[in-house]
Amino acid sequence: MSNPLLTARTALGRIRQRGSHDRAVIDAILDEALICHVGFTAPHGPVVIPTAFVRIDDHIYVHGATANAMLNALAASDVAIAVTLLDGLVLARTAFHHSVNYRSVVLFGRGTVIDDPAQKLVASAALLERMAPGRAAACRMPNAKELRATLFIAVPIDEASAKIRSGPPLPDDGEDAQLPYWAGVIPLSTTRGPAITAPDCDRAP
Amino acid sequence: MSNPLLTARTALGRIRQRGSHDRAVIDAILDEALICHVGFTAPHGPVVIPTAFVRIDDHIYVHGATANAMLNALAASDVAIAVTLLDGLVLARTAFHHSVNYRSVVLFGRGTVIDDPAQKLVASAALLERMAPGRAAACRMPNAKELRATLFIAVPIDEASAKIRSGPPLPDDGEDAQLPYWAGVIPLSTTRGPAITAPDCDRAP
Repeated sequence: MSNPLLTARTALGRIRQRGSHDRAVIDAILDEALICHVGFTAPHGPVVIPTAFVRIDDHIYVHGATANAMLNALAASDVAIAVTLLDGLVLARTAFHHSVNYRSVVLFGRGTVIDDPAQKLVASAALLERMAPGRAAACRMPNAKELRATLFIAVPIDEASAKIRSGPPLPDDGEDAQLPYWAGVIPLSTTRGPAITAPDCDRAP
Repeated sequence: MSNPLLTARTALGRIRQRGSHDRAVIDAILDEALICHVGFTAPHGPVVIPTAFVRIDDHIYVHGATANAMLNALAASDVAIAVTLLDGLVLARTAFHHSVNYRSVVLFGRGTVIDDPAQKLVASAALLERMAPGRAAACRMPNAKELRATLFIAVPIDEASAKIRSGPPLPDDGEDAQLPYWAGVIPLSTTRGPAITAPDCDRAP
């Protein structure tokens, strides 16, 4: 059966055993990451910008102020979005076999402006829940004026691929395996520190 | 005095008090991050890919296999590179004032292939030192064959800007300040876990 996520743009290049077009694999990465990097072609050339995002079903949503030049530029543009989780540093006995462990998704699509206030509200709630589960019910949701001031862009997860590297370094070969150096992985993770209450707030986190 | 890092492409847009063209600010961000996102325009449209990088003086270096299609595409191309450190989740009493704390750099330039093996060796060592200080002296450095198999691309730090948000949420206004919700920051950081020795290695980390 052909996979609709597999197109000329998402066909896997080198080291294809690291790649996947499985939506469950792709969604798990999208749902763990907090930011994405959006690329598009402006009149002066390529642009890449980091921004918060959330996946809802088959779309990724990014947002910002209505006056945000980047967001306006990518509305109705071809965009590439990369989402990357860095899981570890891979240290081998040889410099050549050093690597990183990661899980990444790259997707290609076209941005669409979300005009419907109800849909904006759903995306707002999803973004809040990504930041802190339960938060959508623990703050005042956007009013009509705030929704008008916020631009939401949806990009479909139509053409997407995941790429993953995990585990130890490739074994060094021959004499290299005898080199007197340590080999292994230094795991990396994103950790949440203790909450810092705002100066004008007298509630506990 | 005009700042050479400030061009039409790096001119700061909205919320310009968050922006900087100060090379010390830019370099500090580049030297803390482990990966960047490189954007370029391929025949089929914009592409963004994550990759390890290192700054040496006035250039950023990315590298990969000589056969790497992405790297070959961005050699001698206009590229945009984004480097992002996510420092915290900013939770306000209103959804509208939620934000993230971050430090990011966006730079624009043109990739140049590094052909000189000596220069490749310097970039290799710098990349290893970024992963783990002292590592360049604690592994076998690339031999001539390995250097030939590795493509290095340098991008000058000519047009670049940094953008930083830090600190608590903006104070919610008027009645919003009385809302019965917590407000503050959840700090985020990248942490290194205990080293995991490779199965074929009997040395301690």
